[in-house]
Amino acid sequence: MDNNKLLITMDNKPKPTIYLIPVPLSDTGTERVLPAYNTDIVTKLKYFIVENVRSARRFLKACDKSINIDELTFSELNGHTDPHTIPSLLQPAHDGHDIGIISEAGCPAIADPGADVVAVAQTYGYNVMPLVGPSSILMGLMGSGFNGQSFAFNGYLPIDGGQRSSKLRELERKIMHEHQTQIFIETPYRNNKLIAELCKSLPAHMRLCVASDITGERQSILTRTLKEWSKAKYDYDKIPTIFLLYK
Amino acid sequence: MDNNKLLITMDNKPKPTIYLIPVPLSDTGTERVLPAYNTDIVTKLKYFIVENVRSARRFLKACDKSINIDELTFSELNGHTDPHTIPSLLQPAHDGHDIGIISEAGCPAIADPGADVVAVAQTYGYNVMPLVGPSSILMGLMGSGFNGQSFAFNGYLPIDGGQRSSKLRELERKIMHEHQTQIFIETPYRNNKLIAELCKSLPAHMRLCVASDITGERQSILTRTLKEWSKAKYDYDKIPTIFLLYK
Repeated sequence: MDNNKLLITMDNKPKPTIYLIPVPLSDTGTERVLPAYNTDIVTKLKYFIVENVRSARRFLKACDKSINIDELTFSELNGHTDPHTIPSLLQPAHDGHDIGIISEAGCPAIADPGADVVAVAQTYGYNVMPLVGPSSILMGLMGSGFNGQSFAFNGYLPIDGGQRSSKLRELERKIMHEHQTQIFIETPYRNNKLIAELCKSLPAHMRLCVASDITGERQSILTRTLKEWSKAKYDYDKIPTIFLLYK
Repeated sequence: MDNNKLLITMDNKPKPTIYLIPVPLSDTGTERVLPAYNTDIVTKLKYFIVENVRSARRFLKACDKSINIDELTFSELNGHTDPHTIPSLLQPAHDGHDIGIISEAGCPAIADPGADVVAVAQTYGYNVMPLVGPSSILMGLMGSGFNGQSFAFNGYLPIDGGQRSSKLRELERKIMHEHQTQIFIETPYRNNKLIAELCKSLPAHMRLCVASDITGERQSILTRTLKEWSKAKYDYDKIPTIFLLYK
């Protein structure tokens, strides 16, 4: 059964596919974090929507040294892209070609503008095909030992002091009353300050997992109570880190 | 910098590592959804904590036909396991050995009892190492085009009618006011009924993504408004499916 066929227009043309192509989180090799299948897909594509052309080229070369980059067409989609131009990024699909979406690090469309182009692709009825790859959110959750039946990713905490402490109270409420693991990130140069702040603002028995440099050489995933963190020595300054809280 | 060393006891013994080993979601080959690195790790381990011994053996054989299953030690951890026995499952680690955790499908510790043993491993200060693999939650989110900066996984919706409609109202509120994508699952034979129920209970302009048989041969990831779903033909009966809602 192909639900696409049931729902979408009745012409007989095969639908183009939009592939969501994860990239490594750190300097690790592709075979460390990506299935071989991803490389088979990537090397067949000619059109890409990428967050950054330079790093996308570097990634494609890492997948297959023999790839001819000059044959490929790249469109950029990032924070500077005018949202009105997003549908036009899908022009190769309108012309019948498959497209690959590649973000700076990790899984496209999770915490980057890739989601907007996927949303448009869905309205055109194109096939959308996510590939397997590393996600610091998911891997942090796996390593934390926290509730994986109910969890929320909150992105960045607000910077403004008042909004920030009301957000922390909301997270505490969701942990205690909804039994929901709370996940968030911080600008890496503020990691140490954030841990100190959590220790000061939240109950001492609450557990914090600090998952740092996931899949990298300095990977460290540590779950401790806030009381333990408040007495511990640590230094996560400028290291990409994800934070998880649970009771 | 090794944060483990800073936080944990001062003996010089290397800490055992608890590997979290994902398995395919469907009958697809391991090279379709798992990095080659996972196989390197798996074939070095002698001790496993598994959700089901039979399917874990089958997975290990699929990773490496030449693996000698009879040399391996398996402990079972599933819904029938007495929680008090969980620390004893880590005995091989207490004896200095690495352990692999394998669940029935997908990523261990996300929506299965593996999380409990990871929590205990964290209290002993063991290294915890999640490996990359397929997650229907994450891949459904990638393919939906919905907000990936803020999302929540809710597990199963309540079965009881009153609790269920109050949960749906809560999800609607979180979508509209917190701009948070809401993800949940249903017992597969009730998939079609759930879609009809969502169409009836929630605003017609709300979008529903139905992500079905992810990584399988019948994979289908479709985002439509509830109004469109209410007029569409579909049949997801008994197919593993994940549901995502957003405005």
